[in-house]
Amino acid sequence: MVIVIQCKDGVGLVAAISSVLANAGYNIVSMREHVDLEENKFFARIVVAEISDPQNIEKAITKVLPADAIVKVNPLPEKKIVVLVTKEHHCLSDILTRNHFKTLGASVQCVIGNHPDLKSITERFEIPFHLVSHENKSRESYEAELMAKIVPYNPDYLILAKFMRVLSPEFIGSFKLKIINIHHSFLPAFSGANPYRQALKRGVKIIGATAHFVTDDLDEGPIITQKTISVNHSYILSDLIRAGRENETSALAKAMQLVFEDRVFVYNNKTVVFE
Amino acid sequence: MVIVIQCKDGVGLVAAISSVLANAGYNIVSMREHVDLEENKFFARIVVAEISDPQNIEKAITKVLPADAIVKVNPLPEKKIVVLVTKEHHCLSDILTRNHFKTLGASVQCVIGNHPDLKSITERFEIPFHLVSHENKSRESYEAELMAKIVPYNPDYLILAKFMRVLSPEFIGSFKLKIINIHHSFLPAFSGANPYRQALKRGVKIIGATAHFVTDDLDEGPIITQKTISVNHSYILSDLIRAGRENETSALAKAMQLVFEDRVFVYNNKTVVFE
Amino acid sequence: MVIVIQCKDGVGLVAAISSVLANAGYNIVSMREHVDLEENKFFARIVVAEISDPQNIEKAITKVLPADAIVKVNPLPEKKIVVLVTKEHHCLSDILTRNHFKTLGASVQCVIGNHPDLKSITERFEIPFHLVSHENKSRESYEAELMAKIVPYNPDYLILAKFMRVLSPEFIGSFKLKIINIHHSFLPAFSGANPYRQALKRGVKIIGATAHFVTDDLDEGPIITQKTISVNHSYILSDLIRAGRENETSALAKAMQLVFEDRVFVYNNKTVVFE
Amino acid sequence: MVIVIQCKDGVGLVAAISSVLANAGYNIVSMREHVDLEENKFFARIVVAEISDPQNIEKAITKVLPADAIVKVNPLPEKKIVVLVTKEHHCLSDILTRNHFKTLGASVQCVIGNHPDLKSITERFEIPFHLVSHENKSRESYEAELMAKIVPYNPDYLILAKFMRVLSPEFIGSFKLKIINIHHSFLPAFSGANPYRQALKRGVKIIGATAHFVTDDLDEGPIITQKTISVNHSYILSDLIRAGRENETSALAKAMQLVFEDRVFVYNNKTVVFE
Repeated sequence: MVIVIQCKDGVGLVAAISSVLANAGYNIVSMREHVDLEENKFFARIVVAEISDPQNIEKAITKVLPADAIVKVNPLPEKKIVVLVTKEHHCLSDILTRNHFKTLGASVQCVIGNHPDLKSITERFEIPFHLVSHENKSRESYEAELMAKIVPYNPDYLILAKFMRVLSPEFIGSFKLKIINIHHSFLPAFSGANPYRQALKRGVKIIGATAHFVTDDLDEGPIITQKTISVNHSYILSDLIRAGRENETSALAKAMQLVFEDRVFVYNNKTVVFE
Repeated sequence: MVIVIQCKDGVGLVAAISSVLANAGYNIVSMREHVDLEENKFFARIVVAEISDPQNIEKAITKVLPADAIVKVNPLPEKKIVVLVTKEHHCLSDILTRNHFKTLGASVQCVIGNHPDLKSITERFEIPFHLVSHENKSRESYEAELMAKIVPYNPDYLILAKFMRVLSPEFIGSFKLKIINIHHSFLPAFSGANPYRQALKRGVKIIGATAHFVTDDLDEGPIITQKTISVNHSYILSDLIRAGRENETSALAKAMQLVFEDRVFVYNNKTVVFE
Repeated sequence: MVIVIQCKDGVGLVAAISSVLANAGYNIVSMREHVDLEENKFFARIVVAEISDPQNIEKAITKVLPADAIVKVNPLPEKKIVVLVTKEHHCLSDILTRNHFKTLGASVQCVIGNHPDLKSITERFEIPFHLVSHENKSRESYEAELMAKIVPYNPDYLILAKFMRVLSPEFIGSFKLKIINIHHSFLPAFSGANPYRQALKRGVKIIGATAHFVTDDLDEGPIITQKTISVNHSYILSDLIRAGRENETSALAKAMQLVFEDRVFVYNNKTVVFE
Repeated sequence: MVIVIQCKDGVGLVAAISSVLANAGYNIVSMREHVDLEENKFFARIVVAEISDPQNIEKAITKVLPADAIVKVNPLPEKKIVVLVTKEHHCLSDILTRNHFKTLGASVQCVIGNHPDLKSITERFEIPFHLVSHENKSRESYEAELMAKIVPYNPDYLILAKFMRVLSPEFIGSFKLKIINIHHSFLPAFSGANPYRQALKRGVKIIGATAHFVTDDLDEGPIITQKTISVNHSYILSDLIRAGRENETSALAKAMQLVFEDRVFVYNNKTVVFE
């Protein structure tokens, strides 16, 4: 059972926390702790074989910590996710098969697309697919529709699996640090339209992918994982895109695993990841 | 013996080139060829066991190719380099030991620093070190001094091994596609001062390094190699910098090897690299 | 259109081949050539925009090459594969989704399992699944049954996607260099039963996967691709196995892409791979 | 200041340790803890900003732990090493330049070679070089001479930087878990003479390197780091060896950093590495 803790740093935090557990007779199987000295922040992830009274332990630990402490014992034991997609299938296919074989660490409630292209693959796995088109709609009404579809599922996380719409700060604000996006990225980086074409023109030798939480600025939220893949001059545009897709699938899969196992902490637009 | 060829594309180029070699009785050991279809450019690197009459072969191949062809048989068989440095030793140390053990593929003529810090390590290897300080000098007079030191060595390449001065377009123009630089880079990329601090603040999970030819825009020339290295939240600033240095050393070493073995072709601000 | 050529080396081979193409008015888009000097073997992969008379070109090229030459113009344009599995789904799921979205480069004819576990996932994609149990059968009769299922599909390749049965030399001989297997592997390597447990005991820091053609000795055929992934002391057995699976999926996917794009040549139990 | 702890596991260890520190007014900056559940072993590495009374803290922590506990506060603050070499320079050059610029994390006392080849590079850095030839000597007398050279330096670690002699169990026993070796390794692995030639023959696509503590069986001690590098069919023997050397240098450098920063714990022929 996982315990995650985040608070301002102070002398004796680990002792205080571990005393609570020791007194209750629980043995720590694994503990990861990090202090950001510059920011004076403390983070811990503790694994205990099992805890019979999680709420009591949560309260007891909270009591021995600074007032700003966030303590969660066994947070979201069965995580539920909603997946947003557009037309590209690579991330979604990977999510659906992992979900099907129960190796995702979360349970896919539904898939929502702004195009119908991925309805068939979704339904093959008996997962509901909802088409919410953005066409001929204001962003407000589009997002209201999205929201109406999402809310009944009460998801713990929204996964943007190559969802190509920019979401409003209001929408994002409703799912604070609960939206995970996968974004291509390059060395040197290219923003603007058609980054793969720009990368091709520039002759890059590496392409990357960044999985991150979504905050107001779509591609600038706290980074969870980054992966890179080597490319060369023989890659034409379609090869670059194919390589990029493999890399995106792999980076998003890793990020989801880390988040779903409660290994990721967010603060000040960055993350602590106990890998 | 290496033959490198670059020209506009056309039907029968490979046939024409290889006929010249076959008729002269030379057997191709290895051949790499690339056509950039969008740009209509042809590139080839051919290895032949040995060539007794390189100048004749060069002329004979040139004759069968389009007018813009650049053909070099056994280009720069013993490459000479001058290394420019500031204070950081990691790339220079690597270059000096490779040079000492004759595994660099080029011969270091001298090291020029705008600070004296790396004089001792250089001289330990019996390589001349010249201090050319930039202080209290206009860029023109500084670069004139640099040039005066460099020219007598008649180097084939200048290596900027963590040389922290920006060179003028005029200076760079005197060594067109003969200056190789190593540049840190990040996903997402940070420009401006103190990129490692920015990267730390942003919580990046990967840092990179790009070795490239220097053109007018210092960090934007044709990319030769890129390498990345994984980092995590436990890295403080000095750890990030250390990891970055390992990566820079490795990326510059690889780039030099590729260039010195005539595996790199430049066009339109990008490269073909026959690795 | 791809042309692949394999023969003993000699002077003027590239010239001869490219003359045939030039005379027929075909322009070479990309050419990869390799000579194994020790073995005196020549390999080439040529891409030409399109060829209207492939059979004529095949004959014309063959005529100008040594007697042992194997020349294929547009080999197996639509490759058909049969996939053999046991219980683990990771490689099969990846193959099925790639096949579904037509990014596999081959067409899955059927899946054959010696256990029924993967019937459901296969049929979700409207691909036939055949159960051929090995239980209570001699190897001969088991393989005869397998063969009877496979032959009607006339596959170009058999993919062993975590197929856990050892095949007889006779069976393998019927599909010479047409069977691709994925095999876990380690540094240092462990053979024998339960390699992941051995790796755990030994505290390895890297685990690998090797995709290879199957020859008589199951895990020792010509290597197509190898991938590695870093692990650490915090991995328990199930973590190691999960990491190994990700790596196997990725290595097999890459190997299939290379083979299906005719980039792999086999000789003397090793490969030339024009990546 | 680093505290390292290793003992059998039990309830409340972290609480006990951190209480000692908290009561003494020391704040934990960073803590890594690992329990091997199968082996019932506990490991911790704690960083505290500074400790004025290390011996008291060591005693106080030891008192609250199981009887088998090994506790070290600020272990070997200035580590001393002796480097053993034969003829290959790549690892030694890297060690000498790091040592020169004080980025090694240890101080090189001397270099001992069984050949004179690396005397010059060593002495360029004003480090003593001792030639201890193995020729015409029994292993016993050779090792006695080695020992006589090593002992006066009282080193914390011996680094075998491509030292090509096999050491006796007696010699190794005198430096229990204090000898670090770098060993090439392959997927699949080759033992026996000339592994690079075997790897070439087998057409491997990856070569590796393993840095490990030396125990009785030379290449089988607890693994500290492993690195791999991709190679391909175009590599001739000398290319493979060059790539292998880069990789060995990099793996050994990383292993030394980890050991010298007290991040490596050994038990049951394997390691816990808090990277």
